[in-house]
Amino acid sequence: MTDQQFRVQLLLTGSELMSGDTLDSNSALIAQRLLELGISVERKVALGDQQALLVKELSAMAQDADLVIVNGGLGPTVDDLTAQVLAEVAGVAIEEHPEAMKHLHRWCAQRNIELNQANYQQALLPAGCSLIDNPIGSAVGFELSVNGCRIICTPGVPSELTGMLDDIVASLRKQLLRPCEKQILRLQTFGLGESTAQQMIADTYPDWPAEVELGFRAGAPQMEIKLSIEHSSDQATLARCREQLEQLFGDHIIGEGDALLASTVLQLLRERGQTLCTAESCTGGLIASMLTRIPGSSDAFHAGFVTYDNHIKSAVLGVNEQDLEEQGAVSETVVRQMALGAMQRSAADYAIAVSGIAGPGGGSKDKPVGTVWLAWGSQSKLQALQLYWPVERGLFQTMLAAAGLDMIRRQLLGISTEPRYFSQRQAPRASAR
Amino acid sequence: MTDQQFRVQLLLTGSELMSGDTLDSNSALIAQRLLELGISVERKVALGDQQALLVKELSAMAQDADLVIVNGGLGPTVDDLTAQVLAEVAGVAIEEHPEAMKHLHRWCAQRNIELNQANYQQALLPAGCSLIDNPIGSAVGFELSVNGCRIICTPGVPSELTGMLDDIVASLRKQLLRPCEKQILRLQTFGLGESTAQQMIADTYPDWPAEVELGFRAGAPQMEIKLSIEHSSDQATLARCREQLEQLFGDHIIGEGDALLASTVLQLLRERGQTLCTAESCTGGLIASMLTRIPGSSDAFHAGFVTYDNHIKSAVLGVNEQDLEEQGAVSETVVRQMALGAMQRSAADYAIAVSGIAGPGGGSKDKPVGTVWLAWGSQSKLQALQLYWPVERGLFQTMLAAAGLDMIRRQLLGISTEPRYFSQRQAPRASAR
Repeated sequence: MTDQQFRVQLLLTGSELMSGDTLDSNSALIAQRLLELGISVERKVALGDQQALLVKELSAMAQDADLVIVNGGLGPTVDDLTAQVLAEVAGVAIEEHPEAMKHLHRWCAQRNIELNQANYQQALLPAGCSLIDNPIGSAVGFELSVNGCRIICTPGVPSELTGMLDDIVASLRKQLLRPCEKQILRLQTFGLGESTAQQMIADTYPDWPAEVELGFRAGAPQMEIKLSIEHSSDQATLARCREQLEQLFGDHIIGEGDALLASTVLQLLRERGQTLCTAESCTGGLIASMLTRIPGSSDAFHAGFVTYDNHIKSAVLGVNEQDLEEQGAVSETVVRQMALGAMQRSAADYAIAVSGIAGPGGGSKDKPVGTVWLAWGSQSKLQALQLYWPVERGLFQTMLAAAGLDMIRRQLLGISTEPRYFSQRQAPRASAR
Repeated sequence: MTDQQFRVQLLLTGSELMSGDTLDSNSALIAQRLLELGISVERKVALGDQQALLVKELSAMAQDADLVIVNGGLGPTVDDLTAQVLAEVAGVAIEEHPEAMKHLHRWCAQRNIELNQANYQQALLPAGCSLIDNPIGSAVGFELSVNGCRIICTPGVPSELTGMLDDIVASLRKQLLRPCEKQILRLQTFGLGESTAQQMIADTYPDWPAEVELGFRAGAPQMEIKLSIEHSSDQATLARCREQLEQLFGDHIIGEGDALLASTVLQLLRERGQTLCTAESCTGGLIASMLTRIPGSSDAFHAGFVTYDNHIKSAVLGVNEQDLEEQGAVSETVVRQMALGAMQRSAADYAIAVSGIAGPGGGSKDKPVGTVWLAWGSQSKLQALQLYWPVERGLFQTMLAAAGLDMIRRQLLGISTEPRYFSQRQAPRASAR
């Protein structure tokens, strides 16, 4: 049985999901566990706690799907309707379930409390259902087949759901005659847009193999390219596709899996026993924060300077006041002096310095919002570049912080080319170096 | 027309939603905005990027609902199917939309890039649809009525969706004959947990009026308390409830609406014509970054120091080397010297200094992971406090950065009490001051 044949739908219940007060993370939890078995979720429906709507939806799902996982509605309050809904869909009665009663008595005894009427409701389940143990909470899970569709009801409390998913996955593994587990490769990139990347692949490899599914996830600042292939497919195909992407995107690929620019830069520095410092104006501490977010960053990052004001650029980093006056804070001269000053004061081997106009205020005709100078490198090899990146303030800070990290990554790896993005982002007037 | 009659469904598209790679936050964003008009979302369905399934679902929704908001699938890649799906459901052709072309040309011109084939796809829309402007991105929104059901298609990028929702809400307000609009008051708090806040309200105000709906949204670092009431209800009730919450939570309330700790602190400083600097070890630049994320922060924030390494604490901030040796970097002596050094070097009026063990490594028996010293205030009134906050590294940094900002906020407002959280977070051994 492959995932093409095995159709899975999720029914998420709870008025708090509908009002926007609670984000649904449970369906992601379920989907990720099912993916281990090569099972994709085809459809997810969320509904408030209304019996008629729930019955209609679950009936339709039982017609369509091979497996429905219902999440939520197992609690002790009047809003908790899942047992009644499933009974109505299956056309069976609700009755006291002896195993569920035992579970409730045990649960109460552990807590030294008496079983109250509200909790007793949790033992009233559809006739003929089988139970799924809940090692944490009072609500047991339960399942029943309707029209040959397995319907599994799970609790909405994430920790209780997590506990139950091990049992559910184990049971599904037995049910699936030949689980077609997938192999997934995720490549992290910086400096490529989603549409550019897709276009480049389509243009360069028109014969891209159909069994290697491509996915793109554009985040800020990175973009992830995901390759997935069924385990039963030819593994050489995935290896070849990976090589092709590496040839195509080359130094835009930062790493695999969850690789981040900051963690990659720190690792490169660690391997060399060297350190990096930062001198930030418009990014305001974000580069330092991205670096120190990574555990163990203190190996390779010791000092950062946020010199937001011109006076501080001089007082703290020793930027020449006359240069500041004549060239302005957003200039090659100043950003180079910021980097050098930071290295001198911190004895770091490398620096990233950024000075620009993040907006929305502060722009001028000569230097509009989005204008920025970056400097990076060592005392002996310090490079600088002007870019123009007129986007919303927060995104500007994120992309420029990442650009700074990427330029150091490139220098450490001996890559002399710039990311594709930069050719589009260069200020029309700029003499780039 | 009331919300009982006006049936709204959401169709969320994107394989990344189905695989569990991405949490759906957009539907919460939409639900919250619709709630302003008294409109509840009845049903949400999420599907991967598969044309046949999308067409079937949207057709059914158009039969059932008065309004369907489709989210996602407007991008330039082959995965982006929404325009084709809507055209098929409506039984119209796909054609080049002149207004969308204009938008794309403008968008490319602003970025100094050429319109590529992928982006051109974004101008191919269902015949007869009307556009919704996207001030940020390349994807315009569009809408079409099918069987008397308004179908509005919106982009999946959250910032682009947010921008578009203002227009959509305004248009719906006109459509609804008698919108039962809700008045919503959002209070931002720091230092209160969701369940604690809820329990405090239940205990103190057992007669809380049923017409004033209470919602809690726990984020990190802030928690939002939301009050909503129908416009037709007695407005004095809302005012009274607000007063009650202010009495109950007092100085834990940072502000209204979208108030952030950083923006509130900057505003207080701006009013006084004073400035703040930061000296960060374990928060690694996050406080500076939170401050500089706010437009106009340069008025009141000029300098930040990230002194991650002990040697840098001495070299850059003048912390006494012997104190570092004897007391350790995570000590009252050192954190006070960091704050004083930062104020001296930057000539700022106030400082926040933080030194602690964010983990996962670096803890000891005496100073386990989660131990932290905070100092805040002016040269003449510098306070310090030890806390113990053993949570995951990223959350630790976020909560401690916020705690530092909150302590300065309290000092600026002349509040002498500490947030409730702190009494639970104090190190057992600590002599707090």
